[in-house]
Amino acid sequence: MPRTATCSGMMRSMQKDDIKDWPDHVAAVPLDKAYRLLNHGPTVLVSASHGGVDNVMAAAWACALDFAPPKVTVVLDKSTRTRELVEASGWWVLSVPNVSLAALTLGVGTDSARGMPDKLLKHGVGTFRTPDVPVPLVVGCSAWLACRLVPEPHNQQTYDLFIGEVVGAWADERVFRSGRWCFEDAPRELRTLHYVAGGQFYVTGESLQV
Amino acid sequence: MPRTATCSGMMRSMQKDDIKDWPDHVAAVPLDKAYRLLNHGPTVLVSASHGGVDNVMAAAWACALDFAPPKVTVVLDKSTRTRELVEASGWWVLSVPNVSLAALTLGVGTDSARGMPDKLLKHGVGTFRTPDVPVPLVVGCSAWLACRLVPEPHNQQTYDLFIGEVVGAWADERVFRSGRWCFEDAPRELRTLHYVAGGQFYVTGESLQV
Repeated sequence: MPRTATCSGMMRSMQKDDIKDWPDHVAAVPLDKAYRLLNHGPTVLVSASHGGVDNVMAAAWACALDFAPPKVTVVLDKSTRTRELVEASGWWVLSVPNVSLAALTLGVGTDSARGMPDKLLKHGVGTFRTPDVPVPLVVGCSAWLACRLVPEPHNQQTYDLFIGEVVGAWADERVFRSGRWCFEDAPRELRTLHYVAGGQFYVTGESLQV
Repeated sequence: MPRTATCSGMMRSMQKDDIKDWPDHVAAVPLDKAYRLLNHGPTVLVSASHGGVDNVMAAAWACALDFAPPKVTVVLDKSTRTRELVEASGWWVLSVPNVSLAALTLGVGTDSARGMPDKLLKHGVGTFRTPDVPVPLVVGCSAWLACRLVPEPHNQQTYDLFIGEVVGAWADERVFRSGRWCFEDAPRELRTLHYVAGGQFYVTGESLQV
């Protein structure tokens, strides 16, 4: 499958050889289908980067906001290091973790880089990068959305609510193809997660066609 | 289980006999646990009422925003009748539908009351009411959150994004008890839904404890 990015002309066409450490199975998702990566309400990892510092946290409160151009919301508490990096750089990536990353997701959602500078190393967070997005993507996830901040200082300050425009989207083609999730045909480990509390998740379940 | 509402002193203590047509199994959820009803990202039904007119639509883009007082976001398109009622009354209810209501959820998410004035009748939407919330709740759902609009005209106009404070919350105690979902112990029909597109949902799946 060609790895042509489809993000409003901003990204250049990408071939596998262009990208260092690009994982297998990762394919671009057309931007008009990007909302579907979040539509079923999965828990996400939020990554950000500024001044040579990367961080990753978990967030259950991320949601699609618009179709075209695609937008998302995410709630980032004032206590988090990731928020600081987002505010400094104007970018973040939402990586959609799966069953194989449940412990990692809980770990980066529990520990803060403020008290644990080697948080990513401790929790075994691998990352890869794609041209034109100055934020790392988390290895092993089932989907990724690169987001550019739409500055709304009142929302950010009052509600910890950040709005982003999605300028690039990718998915593991074993579980998302032709604009649709297809968990039925893939290993359980690639199914996405829905956090509740106290270390408990629900795994995305059976497909139901009405 | 007593049906005492716990919403910042606003609601009076409720006994079953106070409430006409109050369904079985519905119990109040403490407001500090209300976010957990949405934390796993289910698709919701949005109901609203004004001037004697009720309406219900489906929404995949609803999300928790804060713990205490609990707040939520929901995206309501300008074309919807429900949004008009929300703007006129300042209230809505999020009902969390389940497998037994998948066809109803798709139906009220597809048809508009603008072109189909008897939409609720056509799709078999039953409702019940609770004191002090001027909006009907949808019968047969697994949870409910009564929301009072926090006016943010810029968000509403620019992003179709509505912020609400949750002033009352209830759940079917067969699937949500002691502040936790417990789908494992209940019939499949009570599991919540996660919409994708084209009439396809994913059902909330297995519990995964890290």
